Formats: sequence, C-alpha cells, structure tokens
Amino acid sequence: MQSGRSRVIVEGAAPQVDGGRYPAKRVVGEPIDCACDLVSDGHDAVAGRLLYRRAGTKEWAEAPLAPRGNDRFGASFLATSTGRWEFTFEAWIDHFTTWARGLAKKAAAQQDVTLDLLTGAKMVAAATARAKSLVENEALSRAAALLGDPAMDLHARVAQATSPELARVMADNPDRSHASRLDEPLALTIDPKLARFGAWYEFFPRSSVGRASLEPLRHRTLREAEERLPYVADMGFDVLYLPPIHPIGRAYRKGPNNTLTAGPDDVGSPWAIGAAEGGHKAVHPELGTLDDLRRFVARARSLGIEVALDVAFQVSPDHPYVKEHPEWFLKRPDGSIQYAENPPKKYQDVYPFDFECDAWESLWTELTSVVTFWAEQGVRVFRVDNPHTKSLRFWERCIAEVKAQYPDTVFLAEAFTRPKLMYALAKMGFSQSYTYFTWRHTKEEFTEYLRELTRPPVSDFFRPNFWPNTPDILPEHLQYGGRPVFVQRLILAAMMSASYGIYGPPFELMEHVARPGAEEYIDNEKFQLRSWDVERPDSLAGLIGKVNRIRRENPALHDNRISFHHTDNPHLLCFGKRDASGENVVLCVVNLDTNHTHAGWVELDLPALGVQPHERYQVHDLLADARYQWSGTRNYVELDPRVTPAHVFRIRKHVRTEHDFEYFL
Amino acid sequence: MQSGRSRVIVEGAAPQVDGGRYPAKRVVGEPIDCACDLVSDGHDAVAGRLLYRRAGTKEWAEAPLAPRGNDRFGASFLATSTGRWEFTFEAWIDHFTTWARGLAKKAAAQQDVTLDLLTGAKMVAAATARAKSLVENEALSRAAALLGDPAMDLHARVAQATSPELARVMADNPDRSHASRLDEPLALTIDPKLARFGAWYEFFPRSSVGRASLEPLRHRTLREAEERLPYVADMGFDVLYLPPIHPIGRAYRKGPNNTLTAGPDDVGSPWAIGAAEGGHKAVHPELGTLDDLRRFVARARSLGIEVALDVAFQVSPDHPYVKEHPEWFLKRPDGSIQYAENPPKKYQDVYPFDFECDAWESLWTELTSVVTFWAEQGVRVFRVDNPHTKSLRFWERCIAEVKAQYPDTVFLAEAFTRPKLMYALAKMGFSQSYTYFTWRHTKEEFTEYLRELTRPPVSDFFRPNFWPNTPDILPEHLQYGGRPVFVQRLILAAMMSASYGIYGPPFELMEHVARPGAEEYIDNEKFQLRSWDVERPDSLAGLIGKVNRIRRENPALHDNRISFHHTDNPHLLCFGKRDASGENVVLCVVNLDTNHTHAGWVELDLPALGVQPHERYQVHDLLADARYQWSGTRNYVELDPRVTPAHVFRIRKHVRTEHDFEYFL
Repeated sequence: MQSGRSRVIVEGAAPQVDGGRYPAKRVVGEPIDCACDLVSDGHDAVAGRLLYRRAGTKEWAEAPLAPRGNDRFGASFLATSTGRWEFTFEAWIDHFTTWARGLAKKAAAQQDVTLDLLTGAKMVAAATARAKSLVENEALSRAAALLGDPAMDLHARVAQATSPELARVMADNPDRSHASRLDEPLALTIDPKLARFGAWYEFFPRSSVGRASLEPLRHRTLREAEERLPYVADMGFDVLYLPPIHPIGRAYRKGPNNTLTAGPDDVGSPWAIGAAEGGHKAVHPELGTLDDLRRFVARARSLGIEVALDVAFQVSPDHPYVKEHPEWFLKRPDGSIQYAENPPKKYQDVYPFDFECDAWESLWTELTSVVTFWAEQGVRVFRVDNPHTKSLRFWERCIAEVKAQYPDTVFLAEAFTRPKLMYALAKMGFSQSYTYFTWRHTKEEFTEYLRELTRPPVSDFFRPNFWPNTPDILPEHLQYGGRPVFVQRLILAAMMSASYGIYGPPFELMEHVARPGAEEYIDNEKFQLRSWDVERPDSLAGLIGKVNRIRRENPALHDNRISFHHTDNPHLLCFGKRDASGENVVLCVVNLDTNHTHAGWVELDLPALGVQPHERYQVHDLLADARYQWSGTRNYVELDPRVTPAHVFRIRKHVRTEHDFEYFL
Repeated sequence: MQSGRSRVIVEGAAPQVDGGRYPAKRVVGEPIDCACDLVSDGHDAVAGRLLYRRAGTKEWAEAPLAPRGNDRFGASFLATSTGRWEFTFEAWIDHFTTWARGLAKKAAAQQDVTLDLLTGAKMVAAATARAKSLVENEALSRAAALLGDPAMDLHARVAQATSPELARVMADNPDRSHASRLDEPLALTIDPKLARFGAWYEFFPRSSVGRASLEPLRHRTLREAEERLPYVADMGFDVLYLPPIHPIGRAYRKGPNNTLTAGPDDVGSPWAIGAAEGGHKAVHPELGTLDDLRRFVARARSLGIEVALDVAFQVSPDHPYVKEHPEWFLKRPDGSIQYAENPPKKYQDVYPFDFECDAWESLWTELTSVVTFWAEQGVRVFRVDNPHTKSLRFWERCIAEVKAQYPDTVFLAEAFTRPKLMYALAKMGFSQSYTYFTWRHTKEEFTEYLRELTRPPVSDFFRPNFWPNTPDILPEHLQYGGRPVFVQRLILAAMMSASYGIYGPPFELMEHVARPGAEEYIDNEKFQLRSWDVERPDSLAGLIGKVNRIRRENPALHDNRISFHHTDNPHLLCFGKRDASGENVVLCVVNLDTNHTHAGWVELDLPALGVQPHERYQVHDLLADARYQWSGTRNYVELDPRVTPAHVFRIRKHVRTEHDFEYFL
C-alpha cells in the first residue's frame, strides 16, 4: 500500500488489456506511447515519470511525463528487443513548481514575498542532496543561498526563483518521497514487426508449377518446391506459409474432393497428421527430410521470406501418440478413441486431444515441445490451425513458453469463430489472426469492422490478417465476379490491413470453380496433387508484385491505423492511412461494385490526413502512376472496374522552395 | 491459479469500476444486474452461476446465469442490506447438455446411439453423488439405469436422455470440478436509495422567514428553525441541508458581501469553523445546543426529511485544533501557520490542513471521528465542502470507515472542479456529487453531458445531484431571465437527475440580484442575517411542491437512466425516463429559450419508451393536468415559456378490456 501522504492517483493507464490481466502488443524498434491520468486534489502542480524495463530486469528506465490536457500525461519509449516488457508510472506533487508559480503571481501583484523566498530556499537546499552531479549540486546550492539571503536584491532573488534553469534542475531532481505508482506494472509483448506487417503467401509444396506443370503429375519434394521461392519473392511476399509437412495418416484417408474412399495413390490431407513414419516432429517422407526443411527455410530467408509452418494439434488414427499416449484422448464406452464429431457429422480420420484429461500437464508439455522443435530448426512463424477448438489456457501457456525461448516467433490464429473467442485467442498470446474480412462487402461493413479492429481496446491485443481466399474458403464473390473482384479483394486486403495473405497459385490464376454446394475449391489441393501454369499471361502475379512493392515503400501501410472519408456514392469506399511521422500518407478509393463504373465526390477529413485546409496537394495513383492536382475537402473520382476498381493514391504535399520552384514530396 | 482443465474464461464482468479497483455503486432493495462473457473453446455448452454475498460473510449465494447472446451471460440478485457486498461468476463446460444436444441430432439422423447412451448413463450416474436431495438422487439413479440398460426400448432411452426434466435436474447438480471464476471477486457499495434519489433543500437556520420576517432582524436558533420544517416538508423535499452549525471564528471574520472588515455585530461565515467555544464537534452557541440539533434532526425525520450537515475540513485561526495540534498545519518560515492562498489571493481567515504532514495518521483519524460524531447524533447525510482540496486517499479511508459503522450514510461531494477529479472523488466513495449542470444550456450540452453521466462506466460510480443555484452560485441566466428561467431550471434539474437541490428561500422567491462583478448573490446569507417573506404570492413554493410530488409518484424519475429524442427545433429538448419495470414512463419536452414560444415536431424513439410502433397512447401533462392523444413517432409540441417552459408527460398506454371499454394505465 502507498503511504497516506501520496496525493496523486495514477489511473486510466494505456495501453492496457482487461485491466492489466493480459499484455498489450507492440512492435520492436518503434516508439511506444504510454499515457495515464494523474489526478490529485487541489491545484498543485503534478509531475511524473514513465518507468519501463525488460521483464526480469531490475532497474527501471525513466522518461518524464508531459501534460496532454484534462489531467492526462504521457511519454514514449523505445523497446530495444523483442520479448516481455513492463511499464508503470510514478507521480508526485511538484511543490517547487507550485511554489514558483505562486511566487511569480505574488511578485507581479507587488506583494511581500520575503517569507515565500525563504520557503523556496529550503526546498532548493533540500534538493542538493538529491542532485545527480556535482554541477547540479553546486547550481542548487548557489540558488538556495541566493533565495535565502535577505541581503541580496529582492528582484534578483525572485528572478532566480522563477528562472527556467532552476526549474529544469529542480525537475531533474524531484522529491519523490511521497510518489504514487500504479498498483501493478503493466505488461507488453514486444514482437518483431512481422507480427503486425507482412504479406503472406500460402502454397502446397507437393504441387507442381510452371514448366513442371506440363509434366505428368507427381508428388513434389521440398527440394523441388525451393525452385518456386524466387517466384514468391518476385511477388514481394514476406511470409510463405506451408500446410502441414508431416507424415499423413492412412486410416480413413480422404480422397479427392473430400470423398470418404481414398484410392491407394491418393495423397490424403496434410492435416491428417501422423503415420508409422512419425508425427508432429517428422517430415513427410514424400516431401523430404528434416535437412531439406532446414535448407528450404534458409533459402527462403536468403530471399527475404520467412517460412511459416502449420501447427495443427490433432492426429490421424495412425499417429504414434495414439499408441504411446492413449491417456491424452477421450475414450468411448467400448474402449475405442473418440473421433471428432459435429453431430450428426463424424470425422473418423481425426482424433482430437482431450485437453481436460487427467494427464493434461504432460499433453501440454508435449504439444509445446512440438513448436519449440520447429523453432529449433529455424522456423519463426507459425500458422495455428483451428486454435479455437483447443483450450484457451493451453495457448496462453504454450505461446508464453515458446516466446520465452524464442521471442521473435509469430503466431497466426486460423480462427473463424465467435467474436469474443477470436479476441480471447489474441489475449492468450496469438500475434495475429484471420478475420471476418472474407465476408465483408459493403461500405458500412468495412467501416464498422475496421473501426472496431484498429482502435483500442481491440487494437491493443488483436492484429488482423486479411485473406481474400484460403484452401478452405472460395467465397461466392470470387466464384462469379471475374478479374475485377480478384483485383478489388487483393487491394482491399493489402491496403486495409498491415498483414494480409493469399492462397496461391489459385488466387493469382483466378481459380473460381467451386465444388457444388460448397464455398470451397473443386479438386482442392487439400486432397489431391495439382499443377499450376503460373506463366499464364492473365496471371495477377505482376499486379500482386506491384501491390506488395507499394506496401513495402509506404510506411503508412505498415500499421493498422485508418481513417474513413465520406463519399456521396454508397459504392465508393474511401480510406486513408498515415504513418506515425505523418510524412507518408496513402489514400485509397475503391469501387465496391465490380460490375459497373461508379463516380462521386469524396469528402476528405483533411486533419486525419495531415493536410492543411487551404493546402494544394497532389494525389499520385501508385498503381496507374497517374497524378492529379487536388485541393480542399471535396474531390471527384470515377472508377471503371474493368480498368481498375481502385485508386491507391500517395498524397504528395505541395512545397514551395525559396527559389519559388514547386515540387511535391 | 486455476487448473489447466478449466476451459471457460470469465471476462468483461459488469458492473466493475477501473478493473475492480473500486466498488460499483448500487441501491438496497433493487435487483442488481450482473453480467459477464463466458468464453470457451469449441462449441460445447457452457453453464455458470452468479455468486454473491455480503462482504465479510463466508457463504456465497448463487443465481444461475442465463445466456444473452454473443457469449454474454447474466443474472441479478437483491442486496438485502446496505454496506459492502461482493460478487463473482463461476462457469464450467456443461458436458451433459453438449452430449444431449449431440444425441438428439444423431438420433434424428437415425444413427446408432448405443455407445452414446452409455456415455450419458455414466454422466448421469456420476451426478447422483452431487444430488442435493433424496428425490433428485433417485430421479438421477432411475435415469442412469434406463439410459444404460441395453434391454430397454431405444426410443424410451433417447426420450429420457433428452427430456427437459433430466436436463433440469442435471443443470441443478452440475459437475463444477473444473470451474473457472474471476481472478478476484468484484465489490459493490450498497447504499440507501437516498444516495441516488432525493430532492434537496438548503437553508441557513440563522435566517428569519414568514411572519418572523416582519420583526427586527436577529440571529435565529435551531429551535426556531424547527418551525420552518413543515414549509420544507410541504414542498416535498427529502433532504434539508444546513451550512456548518459550528462556532464561527472571529479572526479575519468577513463582513457583509465578503468584505474584509467585519463589525462587532457581523455574524461571519459559517464555513470559518472554530472558536473558543469549540470546533467541528460543537454547535454554535447562537444556534443552540447539541440537544437542539438532535431534536431538529428527529423532528425533520418525523416529517420525512433527512438533515444533511456540512463537512468542511478547514479551520478558522481561532479553532482549538490550531493550538492543540499545530503539527497538522503547514508552517511558514517565521513559525506562523500558512493560511489558504490562491496567489495572489490570500484567505487569512482559513487554515487548511496539511494532509502530507508527518502526523497525517492522527489527523486522518481525528477528521474521520468528526463525521462519526455527527453520525452518533443521528445524522446520516453529509454534504462535504470542497472535498477536491483534500487528499483523495484520505476520503477513501474516511468514507470507508464511516460506512463500515454507518452503512446508511450518504456523502454529497461539493466539488466543482476538473472532470477527472470529480470522478476520482466518486471512486473514493462519495455517494453523489454536484455537477456542471449549472452551466449547461443547449440541447447538445445537455445531451452530451447526460449521456456521459447516465451510462457505464461513469454511472457505475458517479451519481449526479443537479443544483440550479447555491449560496455560492447565482448563475447569469437566473440574474436576467425572470420567472420562466427559474421554472425551466427547476424542471430540468428535477426531471433529468434523480437527485437535485435548490438553495432557498432565494430560489423560490426568485432572488436574482448579484453582487456586482460576481456570479453570487448580493447581501449573501453566507456573511449576514437575512429574512425571507416566503408567503409572497409569486413564490414558486407551490410549483416546487407539485414537481416534487411528481418525482415521488413516478418511479421513472428515481433513477438516472434517460433517453433523448430528436426534435426539429434546436430550442426544444425532449427526453424520456422509464423505470426498471417499464411500467412507468415520463417524457419531458422543454423549451430552452425562455424568451420566445417555440413549436416543433418531436420524433420519439418508441422502443426506448416501451411503446409499440402502432400503439395509441396518451400523454398526460402532470404539471398542467392536460391530456393529449398521441400515436406513432412524430408528434407536435408548442411551448410558451410565459405559460410554462415545459411539458412533463406521463405516457399512459392504451388498454382495451374484454368489454371493449378503453382506458389508459
């Protein structure tokens, strides 16, 4: 408990998640803004510091708190490494400043300040003992002597008392004996930037592409898949996510198009993990060896790509765990192991773990060791399959343990489930998550959803990753909309969310045929080998490369902060992004109707874009490399989706040099 | 820590203040609604209970949680006594319900459910050990036997498994071995209803009223002031607040109109507390004795009025504390005690306590004993003068200690200060507070301010008390607006806020002359004796009585929940109130321009008022006793402020009896 003499209350601290129960998420190497309310009685001046440190270290670093109005104060700091950090605030009544302000007013009102000067002299003399250097000590001693010396000129004493120099030295050596803090420090998870910003590409390494697609179809290896890496790198992707690479079970193996009867040559679903050849820590022999995987990861990294592995905590009936650890599974009354169900549907090819079993601790330890095993092989990014069907507290412990060893790891939650469960997974430690983006279409839907995702409290713990398609989801609009829809969904995902991803080559090749009655691809790679002619002239690969270059070159797109701008046409969506420095500003206008040309007036919220009301500015379409001179809030836009469904403008502000030569930054 | 097997996360609990740091406030004898999110992995059924108890007792009482959609659950309970209570939530996976749902689906799909029935039989058999009665035990045993008996008819076994009776008994005896709770219970302060709902009247007992006002002016006593109680009771007030009744200091006593030189007959300000005759625990001899005060309190209570005393923690230089406890005050370098200052202004008649002094603990103890002293005399309501200039943590401890002994006490904070400090005082324990109402005028101002005050988070800890005037504040609109403004401000205060108050007789006599250059009454009772002719025919006393009767008779006005309704005239403010049962609905339309008649259309939010879209209803003006037949959302209103600036409607819903005789409830 704090002493009764601590008159400042520290409250409303930010960032915090659920009253401090969970860490807030931030990114290494960027200033982290922290703020709080400092509430104290009366009208005395208040001062304080932000205290921050890496968790586990003892010493706090400090930054002075600056007032932001309405009793709010703030400061920022740079977390210099990934991992767990913590911060708190310390605040106290600033008696010296209170006194100096009063003295100045009294002196201005020609009042007798003789006694007041003695009060101040005492405060300054006391500060000498706290001085951090001999220079400060001497400055304070001199000031105290002058203030307290009745023989000296009164004006000189008042001038000394109210001088900015003395104020600075006193502020640097405050009396914190009655300081208050938060009851508990608040925690931060400091992630690599990739946890927030990255373009993801998913492919099945066993498939064939390019020239190889002309050959007869066969199961490709990781060594062969390496040849596809330059193609992915050329498109500018940051992460390459591979479906599970482990041995695939044979029991109840699914055939093409999710049929129940697989032939002897059917390759099975990579998510049916585990066979005689091994389980979650093994590489499927048909893909290669552990060495091949390490080589693949290293080769990708040399091209600027992180490989993401799939973490799917479920087993095929052939998985070694089933025999070695029957205690981890639920048993039916006949002694058999309970397969997955969604009554009346049965999934006999999948055994779920029983997270409530008596042996839960050994189960949790083993599953966590699966992730650290792959981290040891050099993998730093994990896409977790269906995390919402595994115990939340398990994830909290698993991710904390992995990140304690490998603070640079990134976990993407593949959760498409109830809103509160999506958010709970993020609180448990997932770095980012799939979202409802895939099923959002209208201006109102995007505006409402993005406002929720990109502002506290949600933005402090949940980071979105927008996917126009996945192997599980071929949404209806992609089935029927043709190229304009693919382009539009690509731009929406890539521009609205700092992280986005596509499942290719089906995306860039605009695959659109669904299995009848399902929102899923026909002849899905999940169940069979495919080959892809990525050299097709209509491929979107070039456009994707351009979009990813725009993303990399514009820091505004590296974060999720967004502003929406009014348009007078319901089909035109207009949003802006601006980086922390305010220098880089991107403005997008998207025609949401991919069947018709739409035109209208956009009404820009100029302060949100950092543009002055009467400033001229240029909007530079980075996709079409066209430039338009705009001014004021209202500007006209027309978009023909057959040409392009969107403008991606960089706002270039008007600068007039001393030689009256105009250019745009 | 909860076991890893607890799969439910309890979060988003309400009500809570600052993550549980401070208690939320509720009122005795009313259902208290509590809610939380229960988030668990997967799709299993979840069940839970609200647990609640008086703080300090051991046993929890329980109420089952009902789903409210989107993973939110709630229940309510009745706090049967004032004081500190606490609550938490407990929740678990409901395996039986999950199983029964699945069984019903499988059976409907004609699947073999033999094994499933055995699984269920085991669950039901296990529940027998938890049965709370022999009857339940037997019912469960019978059900388990039937479910598990392969010799019995399959249809009968499925019917038993999915029967509502079995579901009920299983829900009453759940398996809570892996239940989760909040990390810590949440606290509630249960107050008497007066903490939220009450009409306050302030008068100076030393002044003269009525017939006595014709006599020569003299200092009246508490005995004489007793005669004024029926007048206050007739106006329907619930609380009578007296300025400080303690001996008044002579040093630096203020004269009439806050002048610095008092004559020998000047009575001084009651807030200059303390003289040779005693301090904060004494009664000013000119008012009478402690006995007189107790008699006054009892007489008031017999008329339905609670007496509120003023708690002003500051002293006159003549206060006994100054000699007896110089350690509680700040000393100047010359050894004199530091008087109050707001540089360059000096208040030499007032010594503030130094809440940071070394002897802070004895100071806090003594000040707390001042409040308990008056509580021992029967006083239960305290209006605290300038609490924002005393240490916040002092109030937290003081109010907690007083309420531990006297849980029925009500503390009104007389704070007109910064918004966060107003709210911090409420968090420290003040039951209610003065507000910015006095300076709010426009439709936007009222709407914004009331929305902030009447919804969580603010409404969970802060309760408003609206005052059109106080001895310190004669706002400009009352100085120049005449009767229409007095009537309008009265109705606004009394209808918008469950607690409101006036300083009389100046209010009902429409005193409006200010001391030049100040927002304060001329010849203020704070500094001199006054006499008031409350029999004046233009007095607002009759109207005030009617307004207070309307308040008492309409439960909708006993709470601060409010809805605002659109009007097409910026001068017309329309708001509605509805009690918890939904039966009592009051709708007010106020002309905010007291100089001109205004008319317009109100656009009612019918669901907020509990009216069906096509229902006819009557609006009954309770002030004018006029009735209008309304229907639908749009209705016309015209208000001439010279007649009345407001309609105060009770909405009476249309009822058609079986004999086709219509009436309105």
